[in-house]
Amino acid sequence: MKIHGKHYRSVWPIGEDAFGIIDQTRLPHEFVTLELRTADDAAHAIRSMQTRGAPLIGAVAAYGLALAVRKDSSDESIERALHMLAETRPTAINLKWALWRMRGALLNHPRDKRAAIAWAEAAAIAGEDAAMCEAIGRNGLEIIRALHREKGRKLNILTHCNAGWLATVDWGTALAPIYMAHDERIPLHVWVDETRPRNQGASLTAFELGAHGVAHTIIVDNAGGHYMQAGQVDLCIVGTDRVTTNGDVANKIGTYLKALAAKDNGVPFYVALPSSTIDWTLASGRDIPIEERSPDELLKMTGRTPSGSIQTVEIAAPGSPGANPGFDVTPSRLVTGFITERGTCEATEQGLRSLFPAA
Amino acid sequence: MKIHGKHYRSVWPIGEDAFGIIDQTRLPHEFVTLELRTADDAAHAIRSMQTRGAPLIGAVAAYGLALAVRKDSSDESIERALHMLAETRPTAINLKWALWRMRGALLNHPRDKRAAIAWAEAAAIAGEDAAMCEAIGRNGLEIIRALHREKGRKLNILTHCNAGWLATVDWGTALAPIYMAHDERIPLHVWVDETRPRNQGASLTAFELGAHGVAHTIIVDNAGGHYMQAGQVDLCIVGTDRVTTNGDVANKIGTYLKALAAKDNGVPFYVALPSSTIDWTLASGRDIPIEERSPDELLKMTGRTPSGSIQTVEIAAPGSPGANPGFDVTPSRLVTGFITERGTCEATEQGLRSLFPAA
Repeated sequence: MKIHGKHYRSVWPIGEDAFGIIDQTRLPHEFVTLELRTADDAAHAIRSMQTRGAPLIGAVAAYGLALAVRKDSSDESIERALHMLAETRPTAINLKWALWRMRGALLNHPRDKRAAIAWAEAAAIAGEDAAMCEAIGRNGLEIIRALHREKGRKLNILTHCNAGWLATVDWGTALAPIYMAHDERIPLHVWVDETRPRNQGASLTAFELGAHGVAHTIIVDNAGGHYMQAGQVDLCIVGTDRVTTNGDVANKIGTYLKALAAKDNGVPFYVALPSSTIDWTLASGRDIPIEERSPDELLKMTGRTPSGSIQTVEIAAPGSPGANPGFDVTPSRLVTGFITERGTCEATEQGLRSLFPAA
Repeated sequence: MKIHGKHYRSVWPIGEDAFGIIDQTRLPHEFVTLELRTADDAAHAIRSMQTRGAPLIGAVAAYGLALAVRKDSSDESIERALHMLAETRPTAINLKWALWRMRGALLNHPRDKRAAIAWAEAAAIAGEDAAMCEAIGRNGLEIIRALHREKGRKLNILTHCNAGWLATVDWGTALAPIYMAHDERIPLHVWVDETRPRNQGASLTAFELGAHGVAHTIIVDNAGGHYMQAGQVDLCIVGTDRVTTNGDVANKIGTYLKALAAKDNGVPFYVALPSSTIDWTLASGRDIPIEERSPDELLKMTGRTPSGSIQTVEIAAPGSPGANPGFDVTPSRLVTGFITERGTCEATEQGLRSLFPAA
């Protein structure tokens, strides 16, 4: 992905003792990169959502663990860093998947080899994520092509939150097919849910789509159902933080409401994911832990003042409390299908097993 | 309703040549009242949403028309003011209902009597609205009492937007039963949808409930479905801007999504309304005009800075456009029932006719 003419990934190595990320809490107002030098830096960046998106935080945690290994390659150090990083966010499974994979790569290797192995493994996780997202893009592109053939006109696609390249190492999940369709000149327009409380849609997805030249319109989260009723949504594509064996989908709070509206209006509702997002250990979405975040995220709002400075303001009635669940679970019955790096499938255990039999 | 120990209605006469309103665009940050002296003042107050809420804008328009009559009591003046006021907001039917009633009261009266008649009729509309809302409160209270007997524990009630006393002359529609239940010590807690883009929930409903001492929590509009799935919502009550003959409900954008979630989780979903909100001329909700408002309402946000000043900030990606439909239509099949001043009924034409046979 290019910004100001420069190619970026959402995470990149800096030599072998640091790595870089884009500070996503500063977007869309400022484009600022950060250099992370310790596992603690990485944990802070994930916890504070300077870096976010289920696939991306897996790669960032892997680099964070690699930095811990470089500092102290003992089993105890690895375990300590691994648990600290695993506890930064509870809902996305990619985080734990990446950390477990890192541990597997380091097991049984002598301590003096571990730093190099860890660094290479983190780079492999990042590289594979970008490749998986590119494959997701190609597979999702088939769906958009078919829909465009069927409708014979400009397509309106709705997405929730940010599942673009900012949420992954490159390309994105839900947005990858959209970028590829746009690049082959399929006429399309994206309805961008602003995605309260943190507004990842209005800030990150709109920023990404705008930078790539994709036509889009920001709407409040309340509006998507109305546009579906009015026949102005042809397709929904979202990302996910965890899919359970039965096909239930944890994703950004509010996804469930859009899936209900899609079902009610006969709009196809797809979820795009790399296989690292599948949690084969959980039978259903009822078992997914839902992160509860600070009420400040909804009671306050940060933006640009007319003079260009960045200001945080309180928007709610003084003294009124808030509650802030970060995710909800969309039952598999509301999901038309999954778009994965190996192809598309039904949102069922059978569908998932058809693509990932060995998992 | 009392604020700082003083009893307020949301609209009140000042002598016979002006009337007062609360500037709701300043809430919850500042409590400011406005004195309106002309029909133009009234039209501006409605258009800019200094005063809002379907029942309330009916009463404000009536007072506005009365001011026009006082200035010029000719038929031409009445028609001109009537049309100007009727066009301030397209979706709420109470506005047109109140203006048509004013015209009916003035017809065939000599010009020198019209000013007094108009003023009295506006006062009657306001007084009847308060009385209707009190009756809605009593009828809705029965539903809450029965639910409390059934559950035997604290009730969680979800509401969307503001259908409290700030949206009416007094009491409110959706909130009237909640105030009465609270006053008779039925334990309850209200989930307040913040209601993007104008945040009437976070600003007005939270302000009202807090002032009355009702336990409540502000949540993003995205969160209600999750709480319903988790069994943490026992009842939804909302207001409406227009109900059509078949029982379809136009209300603040996002209401439809909550009704879908309520249906999916077996949560009763009630709509509270005075009969002035029923549009007998429309067969179904498909025919209701939906107001499209400025994208600035979602791309910018106003709040309090840490130093206490009021500041508007831009929150979205620079250059990204927004779209802002103000209302959506909830199909009658998703509505458990209507709470009116004459009692409760099914959300069907038969139900409505059972309470309002002569309409």
